[in-house]
Amino acid sequence: MELDVVGVGNAIVDVLASASEEFLVEHGLAKGSMTLIDEARARELYASMGPAREASGGSAANTMAGVASLGGKPAYIGRVCNDQLGEIFSHDMRASGIQFAVPPAAGGPSTARCLILITPDAQRTMNTYLGACVDLGPEDVDDELVRRGQVLYLEGYLWDKPKAKEAFVKAARVASAAGRRVALTLSDSFCVARHRDSFLELVARHVDILFANEAEIKALYATESFEQAVDHARRDTKIAALTRGARGSVLVAGTEHVEIAAAPVARVVDTTGAGDLYAAGVLFGLTHGESLASAGRRGSLAAAEVISHYGARPECNLRDLVNGALQA
Amino acid sequence: MELDVVGVGNAIVDVLASASEEFLVEHGLAKGSMTLIDEARARELYASMGPAREASGGSAANTMAGVASLGGKPAYIGRVCNDQLGEIFSHDMRASGIQFAVPPAAGGPSTARCLILITPDAQRTMNTYLGACVDLGPEDVDDELVRRGQVLYLEGYLWDKPKAKEAFVKAARVASAAGRRVALTLSDSFCVARHRDSFLELVARHVDILFANEAEIKALYATESFEQAVDHARRDTKIAALTRGARGSVLVAGTEHVEIAAAPVARVVDTTGAGDLYAAGVLFGLTHGESLASAGRRGSLAAAEVISHYGARPECNLRDLVNGALQA
Repeated sequence: MELDVVGVGNAIVDVLASASEEFLVEHGLAKGSMTLIDEARARELYASMGPAREASGGSAANTMAGVASLGGKPAYIGRVCNDQLGEIFSHDMRASGIQFAVPPAAGGPSTARCLILITPDAQRTMNTYLGACVDLGPEDVDDELVRRGQVLYLEGYLWDKPKAKEAFVKAARVASAAGRRVALTLSDSFCVARHRDSFLELVARHVDILFANEAEIKALYATESFEQAVDHARRDTKIAALTRGARGSVLVAGTEHVEIAAAPVARVVDTTGAGDLYAAGVLFGLTHGESLASAGRRGSLAAAEVISHYGARPECNLRDLVNGALQA
Repeated sequence: MELDVVGVGNAIVDVLASASEEFLVEHGLAKGSMTLIDEARARELYASMGPAREASGGSAANTMAGVASLGGKPAYIGRVCNDQLGEIFSHDMRASGIQFAVPPAAGGPSTARCLILITPDAQRTMNTYLGACVDLGPEDVDDELVRRGQVLYLEGYLWDKPKAKEAFVKAARVASAAGRRVALTLSDSFCVARHRDSFLELVARHVDILFANEAEIKALYATESFEQAVDHARRDTKIAALTRGARGSVLVAGTEHVEIAAAPVARVVDTTGAGDLYAAGVLFGLTHGESLASAGRRGSLAAAEVISHYGARPECNLRDLVNGALQA
């Protein structure tokens, strides 16, 4: 079977709790960011958090869930441990219609979790204990699987661990050699800041489709001007899809330039997964022969669904929802 | 410290997924019921379910979370295993402000989970793998803790396992001897049907405050008439609080009879926890010197909050919400 998108990322279970602005200050957390934490810090932070709910997450995994919900054919490469959270993650992937066959680690660190604090303004602040993800390596990348996907989708977060970076580079090489497109999401502005030079080289040399939000693309090109950053991205990649929160998104491809308004949301509850689901809509559109504008609209509709509730994955059939809205 | 309510119940993590009516039929599930399942059936059902989200549950535990959110002082007795789901359950209890000190089992069956299928009509159908709950026994009941609570709150579900039943009876004896009130929720009409005779005896001899929904109270008194069932309950217990879904609730105490309308809900999403949170509101009211009517209104407001979202525990501060509504 031909696949639409093969995603590679950190396999994570989200632990979502409401928190006050004061809680963030008290615990030294930068609102809206993703911080890597060790197990001791994860325990400490968890102990001080309010009651939580759990849901499978992980940036690229959320995007693959979105592609599946839109009616596409996604696969996923990521690593969990053979524990209860790993079972939950694996179940949710397969139950969403995502091909996911990386065997869980038999021992070692537990399945990754991300402690997500949602402030009353619906912003999410993420604290990730990578656990079993640190063992993701080139040996987990199934070349044949990568060759079957029209697009390989990689998350920038992988750049934080040397072995995952190797897996990332290997997958990109396999995809390019097979004439497949390589897509990257920059993931987080702090992540970009940590790896700016190597991301710049990667984008210019290997990336066909680039996803980023405004803060990330500005951080990548070290500019305060969104317009300048867009121009850089236009030169460096074939397609760039750049989100600006409530201000919508901009997609550029060569001389083509499209601006998409954010889809309306009755009440924004939790912005976790907004960028991931936007990418899902765009990737679905691009792998189904749609125009840049149509793919962008699909992205903004998928993002609107996911920010209307807690959790980073769609809670309804996105195919019906998005097709209905696109035809309206 | 004096406690308002000490709850005893099955400590369970809920696994909530949307499902179609056809899914229930295909898997032989009776809509709205709670069915006990073994581990093999749990695996099979989980494998066929859609993507899910996890949240701490358990009937009496949900009620204690409601009492805490209303500003009360609850404690809880229940048993988890020393695994990831057990950690989640314990965290959520303590983070909710519930005193919970039963140590997790070091081995044996894993923490209980309840596979909850939510149909488009917002009804929940529950399938419970009791796991570590089966080891709850009289040794887990801390007499001193029970004596500190104004009310001991027991869930009928405990009646399904002999050791839990012993724990239940022991706790009721300790509470009665200390002059505390004993409250019982009938839990489920199928549970009532399984244990009708012993429940009848229990209610008449040991229960001061009885909670049940319409189906349960009719099953207990083997009548098709709700009015007849109410009359029986009035004779058997000091206070009975009987819920009728969208039709509100009836509270009786001796000659006093109060009817409470259901509090309005913009959109009913998931009825899981409705009865549990109704009980929380009533118990909070009764332990804070309120009238039957005020306690009933508190219950219906707490229930309205929990059915407006997925999951069986409050997602906001019920004290502010309910006090605001009661004063309006």
